[in-house]
Amino acid sequence: MSKLTNECIRVASRPGGIPTADNFRKEVEPVPDLQPGQILVQNQWLSIEPAMRGWLADANNYASVPEGDVMRSLCVGTVVESRADDYSKGDRLMGWFGWQHYAVVAPTAVVQNITTSDLPPSIYLGVLGLNGITAATALDKLGQPQAGETVVVSTAAGGVGSCVGQLAKALGCRTVGLTSTTEKAEACKNQFAYDHVINYKTDDMAAALKSACPDGVDVYFDNTSGHISDAVMPQLAIGARVIVCGTASVTSWNPPPMGPRIERILLTRRARMQGFLLFDHMDTYPAYVRQLEGMVRAGTLTYREHITDGLESAMGAIQEVYQGKNLGKRLIRL
Amino acid sequence: MSKLTNECIRVASRPGGIPTADNFRKEVEPVPDLQPGQILVQNQWLSIEPAMRGWLADANNYASVPEGDVMRSLCVGTVVESRADDYSKGDRLMGWFGWQHYAVVAPTAVVQNITTSDLPPSIYLGVLGLNGITAATALDKLGQPQAGETVVVSTAAGGVGSCVGQLAKALGCRTVGLTSTTEKAEACKNQFAYDHVINYKTDDMAAALKSACPDGVDVYFDNTSGHISDAVMPQLAIGARVIVCGTASVTSWNPPPMGPRIERILLTRRARMQGFLLFDHMDTYPAYVRQLEGMVRAGTLTYREHITDGLESAMGAIQEVYQGKNLGKRLIRL
Repeated sequence: MSKLTNECIRVASRPGGIPTADNFRKEVEPVPDLQPGQILVQNQWLSIEPAMRGWLADANNYASVPEGDVMRSLCVGTVVESRADDYSKGDRLMGWFGWQHYAVVAPTAVVQNITTSDLPPSIYLGVLGLNGITAATALDKLGQPQAGETVVVSTAAGGVGSCVGQLAKALGCRTVGLTSTTEKAEACKNQFAYDHVINYKTDDMAAALKSACPDGVDVYFDNTSGHISDAVMPQLAIGARVIVCGTASVTSWNPPPMGPRIERILLTRRARMQGFLLFDHMDTYPAYVRQLEGMVRAGTLTYREHITDGLESAMGAIQEVYQGKNLGKRLIRL
Repeated sequence: MSKLTNECIRVASRPGGIPTADNFRKEVEPVPDLQPGQILVQNQWLSIEPAMRGWLADANNYASVPEGDVMRSLCVGTVVESRADDYSKGDRLMGWFGWQHYAVVAPTAVVQNITTSDLPPSIYLGVLGLNGITAATALDKLGQPQAGETVVVSTAAGGVGSCVGQLAKALGCRTVGLTSTTEKAEACKNQFAYDHVINYKTDDMAAALKSACPDGVDVYFDNTSGHISDAVMPQLAIGARVIVCGTASVTSWNPPPMGPRIERILLTRRARMQGFLLFDHMDTYPAYVRQLEGMVRAGTLTYREHITDGLESAMGAIQEVYQGKNLGKRLIRL
């Protein structure tokens, strides 16, 4: 094939807190020749994740992206050329292809083959991707919600949170969403079917939580940490489970900010608090995808996408997510 | 039988923080007549527990003792008279008989019959009582230590801690004890067989922990909270388990004191932190007693007792425990 030119976004510098467009640079370079065992993928969709802040931090993180590397991202793309077994031209894949037009990767970068034709492929980056499968896996394995229990979700309208709320509702739980704008609160009520929605910027959190959770909070799915969690923790019920899935409300952990100690709450409520990282649970990823595909087809799991066009629009998108500018899964369309 | 006179210690007032002798009063009163279904127990041993501070706090606690009541305590005593099935004069019992010479109770107050004759009965209040069974149950069910893992214990020489250290050692773990005096550190090394002992009052905690736990902390058995925990938490290994069993280093939780937020540690280490209360696990109490009886007989589980004589000596004993004046299980002999 004729030599292809790639455009890619590389990590230019490490952010002190939330990554901005200045932490990235765009480069134009030739696509390298395909080696045996590799595949060439043309990206159609790039994903923006809150977790990217962690991937760009240097301190105390599980998976930093080195400076100078193409920004790590899950993408949906199509195989243009294959020198690997089991992959053919035209295959549609979801995987770690990075913020770029063309990716030359080994099959280990592939998370899944997209074989459905009745569902839009972009949802494999959202409700059927990292966000949805994080929600399903963490809620199921760590949260273990029972029918009739109360499940509180922070960033309730976000990619993970909106899925948690709907999954918990489908299991017969009372669902309480914490969010930050009138628009998001509307989506929580009307689209994501939360039983109660609390705006943590305008409502009296303690009073609103007491009213929404008269028997306490059985499962707290925490994507924020910080003051939002400080209001939820004292309301935990006996035997509560707290899933620490993200810390979106804290801009820097170096040094860690101070907050009220929680040991006494965990002790008196015999509560469990546990960190969750999807990469520890990739063996069950396909099973949860199949479960959620069924719910999307049945209409019991809905989603929103916030799409911008063009590779360059990725560079400022992490910051926009932290500014709360997106409603639904943040995607870049190429 | 002739009318007996009882001496008892009642709760006179609620402490703001750590209970002192002033929070109690001694009373002399007749022993009530035995009703059908009741037993009369004469106490030989009373127990002093760090948990008693919690039982005397009014805020946010799982089991407050009402003002005016006889102070709640586990005791070892002998049945003087019985109007209940299954209990006879001369039976030796461990149970909730309170800080007093004579207790008239229902059989629900009995935790266990002491049927062994080769072991001193006082140990059913210590290494074979609330302390030892707390250690065994929490370590086993919540800590789930594996051979070769590193187990860190705060209040390492205490009633619970010394048992945790020895149990973890018997399972093939590397054990690290945190304690506060030279005398306790000696006991940790020589009697309780800790691999490493750190004096948190004199050692550089961060450096000492790094040196003692080169692969991080897999299980942290926390009896203290506070600054001691602040030094341990950043050293957690991936998949660590933190057992919140007590908060001895924090004098008041109203309002909760501030400390470094731990969500990011739990998230990046995928660690689990869980509160433990033995009363949730009474169904497995007898099984753990039998296990520990075997270890005491085999000499693989040793213990210390700190004994004072006379009912009045109980009144200041909780404060003394919090001042670190005891070495080993704190007991009152009548």
